Amino acid sequence: MELFYAYKVGGGYAYLDSEESYHCVRVLRHIAGDSLNIIDGHGTLLHCTLKDASLSAAVATIVSEEPGWGGHPYYLRMAVCPTKNMDRYEWFVEKATELGVDEIVPVIGEHSERRKVREDRLQKIALSAAKQSLKGAVPVIAPAVNLLDYLGRLPGNGLKFIAYCSDDVSPRGSIVDALLTAADPTAAITILIGPEGDFSQGEVQAAIRAGFEPVHLGPSRLRTETAALTAVESVYLALACNNAYDSSSL
Amino acid sequence: MELFYAYKVGGGYAYLDSEESYHCVRVLRHIAGDSLNIIDGHGTLLHCTLKDASLSAAVATIVSEEPGWGGHPYYLRMAVCPTKNMDRYEWFVEKATELGVDEIVPVIGEHSERRKVREDRLQKIALSAAKQSLKGAVPVIAPAVNLLDYLGRLPGNGLKFIAYCSDDVSPRGSIVDALLTAADPTAAITILIGPEGDFSQGEVQAAIRAGFEPVHLGPSRLRTETAALTAVESVYLALACNNAYDSSSL
Repeated sequence: MELFYAYKVGGGYAYLDSEESYHCVRVLRHIAGDSLNIIDGHGTLLHCTLKDASLSAAVATIVSEEPGWGGHPYYLRMAVCPTKNMDRYEWFVEKATELGVDEIVPVIGEHSERRKVREDRLQKIALSAAKQSLKGAVPVIAPAVNLLDYLGRLPGNGLKFIAYCSDDVSPRGSIVDALLTAADPTAAITILIGPEGDFSQGEVQAAIRAGFEPVHLGPSRLRTETAALTAVESVYLALACNNAYDSSSL
Repeated sequence: MELFYAYKVGGGYAYLDSEESYHCVRVLRHIAGDSLNIIDGHGTLLHCTLKDASLSAAVATIVSEEPGWGGHPYYLRMAVCPTKNMDRYEWFVEKATELGVDEIVPVIGEHSERRKVREDRLQKIALSAAKQSLKGAVPVIAPAVNLLDYLGRLPGNGLKFIAYCSDDVSPRGSIVDALLTAADPTAAITILIGPEGDFSQGEVQAAIRAGFEPVHLGPSRLRTETAALTAVESVYLALACNNAYDSSSL
């Protein structure tokens, strides 16, 4: 299924940016009158007819809409320290998008070796993965933020988990058990994943004071990006694959 | 933790191949008498003392052994069609090894675009990932095999799942439900994952006749390598992270 992305929707029209327009009109040779499937990036699939086949600013008329298209029954915010090697973080963004994630926040911890990321590049990867995996919503890549600043400004509600390696700070249950026994698992879920050098004890304690429940991700020693994806998988498998999923809706 | 791999163990000695010897003696400058941690690739960690600091054929005396080191409470065989882009398959091998897998079998399906793989290269990636994630066992990369041939020679026991995309062939339950309701989930588990073009209907029917249970991996449309990793994650999260895991053993 061929999908386009509209950066703006309004007045019955969907607007493609120059890159999407070029791909639609030049590469795929669409002409006015062609049917197009366009996502708005916020969860809706728009069935459209191409109106203005401009190479740089194509416009399509919206014929019908499918809200919640390719959605998942939870809101997941992954706050993950950037990896030293950005390829690994980019890979995480792609895979998390395929499975289902709503926000990715690069948080910078005390032991983070990488303290800067290119959010625009990550956002492009998220858009491409959303189109590839047929999702109406594109995850938001937030600007990189210092962990303690982030803890200070997070809303109070929802489930909050922090995964780290050391057993020194506090006893931890499995993330799977925590998800399966949560009173309202479809509330917003925020999961913190540390850098290669793990969170500092002070950071873990600050997160616990901010309402984060310490969890473990099982017995394997996982790289940062694998730990982050395993957390996404645990939410996906516990809340979308297992209970809430109806195979007839595929 | 610094880990080496012994290609041969016997008579109280562990033998390093030329690559491991060079890394141990030249790069890390170990000398006779140094303590070394060596895995045998079959699940045992060997605490050793370097005896012969040869650049090409180092030998270490085994002091003590830890069988089942970094192991997991199941036997998992992933039979996954190679992806067009081998980077994606190599990535799967790395991540599956980190989580816990025992055999990876590149199976060639009717719709497979790639029909050849370099098993030696995949085996190196598996070894490197096993060392990185502190596992005594290195997953075996089997030679590539035609799917129908593979179905014909699989042992009859254990759990067998086939994951595919279409709803046309047969009703499917969630892989999570299938794992959680299995009578003996720690038996050998074999999971078949198709190529980009999915399995053919004939292949799915042949697998069902060979005892494979059709399963789905949830509502998201996943790439081949993401589907394969999601299957590994489902086993890891259901059988290692959730029930059998004792956090005190970390």
